[in-house]
Amino acid sequence: MGKVKSKFETFRQNTNIIIYGTNTFYGRLFDLVLLGVILISVILVMLETVKEIDLKYHRELIIFEWIITIFFTIEYILRIISIKKPVKYIFSFYGIVDLLAVVPMYFSLFFVGTSVLSILRSVRLLRLFKILKHPQFSNQSVHLKQALIASKGKILIFIYFMLVSSVLIGSIMYVVEGKDGGFTSIPISIYWTIVTLTTVGYGDISPITPLGQSIASLVMIMGYGIIAVPTGIVSAEFASFKSRINAKDKINPCPNCGEEGHELNAKYCYNCGQKL
Amino acid sequence: MGKVKSKFETFRQNTNIIIYGTNTFYGRLFDLVLLGVILISVILVMLETVKEIDLKYHRELIIFEWIITIFFTIEYILRIISIKKPVKYIFSFYGIVDLLAVVPMYFSLFFVGTSVLSILRSVRLLRLFKILKHPQFSNQSVHLKQALIASKGKILIFIYFMLVSSVLIGSIMYVVEGKDGGFTSIPISIYWTIVTLTTVGYGDISPITPLGQSIASLVMIMGYGIIAVPTGIVSAEFASFKSRINAKDKINPCPNCGEEGHELNAKYCYNCGQKL
Amino acid sequence: MGKVKSKFETFRQNTNIIIYGTNTFYGRLFDLVLLGVILISVILVMLETVKEIDLKYHRELIIFEWIITIFFTIEYILRIISIKKPVKYIFSFYGIVDLLAVVPMYFSLFFVGTSVLSILRSVRLLRLFKILKHPQFSNQSVHLKQALIASKGKILIFIYFMLVSSVLIGSIMYVVEGKDGGFTSIPISIYWTIVTLTTVGYGDISPITPLGQSIASLVMIMGYGIIAVPTGIVSAEFASFKSRINAKDKINPCPNCGEEGHELNAKYCYNCGQKL
Amino acid sequence: MGKVKSKFETFRQNTNIIIYGTNTFYGRLFDLVLLGVILISVILVMLETVKEIDLKYHRELIIFEWIITIFFTIEYILRIISIKKPVKYIFSFYGIVDLLAVVPMYFSLFFVGTSVLSILRSVRLLRLFKILKHPQFSNQSVHLKQALIASKGKILIFIYFMLVSSVLIGSIMYVVEGKDGGFTSIPISIYWTIVTLTTVGYGDISPITPLGQSIASLVMIMGYGIIAVPTGIVSAEFASFKSRINAKDKINPCPNCGEEGHELNAKYCYNCGQKL
Repeated sequence: MGKVKSKFETFRQNTNIIIYGTNTFYGRLFDLVLLGVILISVILVMLETVKEIDLKYHRELIIFEWIITIFFTIEYILRIISIKKPVKYIFSFYGIVDLLAVVPMYFSLFFVGTSVLSILRSVRLLRLFKILKHPQFSNQSVHLKQALIASKGKILIFIYFMLVSSVLIGSIMYVVEGKDGGFTSIPISIYWTIVTLTTVGYGDISPITPLGQSIASLVMIMGYGIIAVPTGIVSAEFASFKSRINAKDKINPCPNCGEEGHELNAKYCYNCGQKL
Repeated sequence: MGKVKSKFETFRQNTNIIIYGTNTFYGRLFDLVLLGVILISVILVMLETVKEIDLKYHRELIIFEWIITIFFTIEYILRIISIKKPVKYIFSFYGIVDLLAVVPMYFSLFFVGTSVLSILRSVRLLRLFKILKHPQFSNQSVHLKQALIASKGKILIFIYFMLVSSVLIGSIMYVVEGKDGGFTSIPISIYWTIVTLTTVGYGDISPITPLGQSIASLVMIMGYGIIAVPTGIVSAEFASFKSRINAKDKINPCPNCGEEGHELNAKYCYNCGQKL
Repeated sequence: MGKVKSKFETFRQNTNIIIYGTNTFYGRLFDLVLLGVILISVILVMLETVKEIDLKYHRELIIFEWIITIFFTIEYILRIISIKKPVKYIFSFYGIVDLLAVVPMYFSLFFVGTSVLSILRSVRLLRLFKILKHPQFSNQSVHLKQALIASKGKILIFIYFMLVSSVLIGSIMYVVEGKDGGFTSIPISIYWTIVTLTTVGYGDISPITPLGQSIASLVMIMGYGIIAVPTGIVSAEFASFKSRINAKDKINPCPNCGEEGHELNAKYCYNCGQKL
Repeated sequence: MGKVKSKFETFRQNTNIIIYGTNTFYGRLFDLVLLGVILISVILVMLETVKEIDLKYHRELIIFEWIITIFFTIEYILRIISIKKPVKYIFSFYGIVDLLAVVPMYFSLFFVGTSVLSILRSVRLLRLFKILKHPQFSNQSVHLKQALIASKGKILIFIYFMLVSSVLIGSIMYVVEGKDGGFTSIPISIYWTIVTLTTVGYGDISPITPLGQSIASLVMIMGYGIIAVPTGIVSAEFASFKSRINAKDKINPCPNCGEEGHELNAKYCYNCGQKL
């Protein structure tokens, strides 16, 4: 009995190393295979919505879908078995995502033809964000995250300002252009303002009166100019980040006089001439 | 009599703390409620312009509108009563906005069916900008403002340059493309140039001759490139701002006068000459 | 005779101060009036191309045009008379522009109905660029110019890279999409590529095959990403500019030890404690 | 015999200097002529696809094409003869490109009417990238390259994040908008998301339901805002680059070892310890 338990324990540990670890060969192989299967599963969900493909290969798509679902089910069970705190995993964000990647297919056995369930499967896409936690990328994405968090306050104020401006400009355009130009209501005018201010410019709605076109020109120049604001904020954040890292690289105190700020390739203290 | 006056004085003071203050619980609650009511009032103005909704719920919209108008009226009166210098408030920018948020509804009692009055109500939207003065945001928005003010000169010259270029390019395109491509007059051609230069690109007017398309390509590349100019200006401003703040953060105060902001290699306080 | 000459000399000097100077009241007034007249003349050229306006007010437009032409003629003659080196002015860029602003109208007396002459009048628009030389703006525009000149080399390589990429992508899209999607020739495909790469996106030509749309998606992401390159170049130039100016502002040598780099508000040398 | 060989050797050396060198007059002339011929050959390939031109000038285009092909063939042979390691050149990237610029025309003698071969000729376009290796530009393009390589990691994560977000938003829009708005399948919806997120905005597909337009507005603001991320990354890289170069420019060399790049307050050389 103890032997069985220890054997199971060994199995759990090995599984844990393979599934959660990234240092062993099998651990990295598993990550790669999983990434591939997730990508295939996402592509499957996409293809099912393309009419021509679904009509021709409906059978094949369903078979593939079941293979992937069973693969994900086994993976989900192994994840629960091999982790130390299964409950914490199950109720974590990625735990729920892992479950939602599997459940809709089983439900589809009982409720036929529900397209909502079919769409729910695309939740598995969220598993692709997990890759950003991978040690190879986490360092870089942490930098990105920190710079964005640091500039969060200014960015939010900027977005607030843009939204209120959009409502204001939208209301003005509704009065100026009227229903002929497609500005049939204030919400539609606000939609047009955002389309214009962000320089997207679909052209489904566009001003036709001279006054409307003049205001639109101002909105475009405004939109073209104020893109400088978020860019400037984030740039400054990245630059200050960068220079702090550079500054840290430089600092090597001199053993003689304690002076800091030597370049990495310095051989002698620039202050007292002591060999470093 | 004195008691009544003192009672009224207490009421005024309490009202002032609630309406203008942000430190007490009721003060913050009032701000939140007011923000909510303004948002609802703005949404109401929007919905009235959506034909389907207005036809179905015209009665309800009017009732809601009156409730909000009365709420704003009471708020406006309380603001005048509780402030020390009511005249200054009344003729201030936000004082006029607060009044304009209320007046159109009362006018609509006498002048039926004037849509201009209905639109005038959207002036109350401007009250949403007031939130940027809130202590929680003011610090961040002051930074944004200062950086924009510092780069104002360069930005204005840039916009002037862009407008004159637009007129120039618009005139050329009018000659090159002619009326077939939709370039029916120079003002329309200028409108097209701005649409293109700011990379909005509606597509309501687009060149059809090879020469016109070649010039358009140059304009696009120009527009794509010169967005770097406002962005560069504002980025530099933010970065210089940032580094000044960082510099101040880093440096310990003078033991004598408490002045901060000494350079790392400073030996004496730059303010009082005390040895550091 | 000498008296006449001296009188004429005085007139020349006064005219020179008014036309070329910016320090006296009349000098500044003249600049403002001239700017106004140029703006009006540009608007006149624009309005003549708007059919509805030209039909109604043709006579009035012509009269206004003649008034402005005579004003410009007198100004041109006064400029030649009052300047010391008239030949240099006549053959300078702005000298030629000033002449071209006037000549077409006189030609129109002999050659009736030539729209080319009418368009040539819009050359006077170039006079609007002269304002950037005005002392009030020249300081700022010099900064802009220097930063752009410093980054000229990198920007040119970037544009070269973009153009070659556009030809390459355009050729690929021509093969992939074929004539159905509007990609009727390689030049048209290149035009589409530039429209897409610069994120303008008219929508007059857009891919319809899945492969074409996939390549288009890549081109868009590429275009969205590489806008960072010119922006980054110019931003770095502005920032380095800014910090050099900041650095110069700071430098105040200490009269005692000669140490530089004091803040503007420094009262004592940070190195030796000497009062500045 | 030896004389012949030495004569051939001299020819080889002279050819090498002209073709590969950039220091002699003939070397620079050859580069200019070659650039011109490549440009003409690229324009030829383009023009052949324009129906009207091909119908009129088919004969002339073919003749020109053969002249250029023979020119390129001679150049290719001379390159192989005059270089020291011909095998290395033949299998290098630009060696293969040089060959592909020539081969299709000869193949067209045997396989008539194959448009694929005609298109393959546009590979010669890649030769235009070679110019970036020219000493005049290489310095600048190396800077650009290094800054881009340094920010590669962050840019890749950003693109990954954008692609996954596009799939996610595309799936949501497919469910929300349905087939009426043109969102006929998830791949098409993803295509729309990328068109919107990158602010291109063709307008071939655009949301028509209020909910779809609201989500689209969020996507646009998101796209407008996150352009700050790549721009910020690259800007910071360029700025840090710039400041390192500036730092090196500023500082005088050590009188003992000639090492440059000492800080302004350095008293001793960091390389040899010599007093500065």
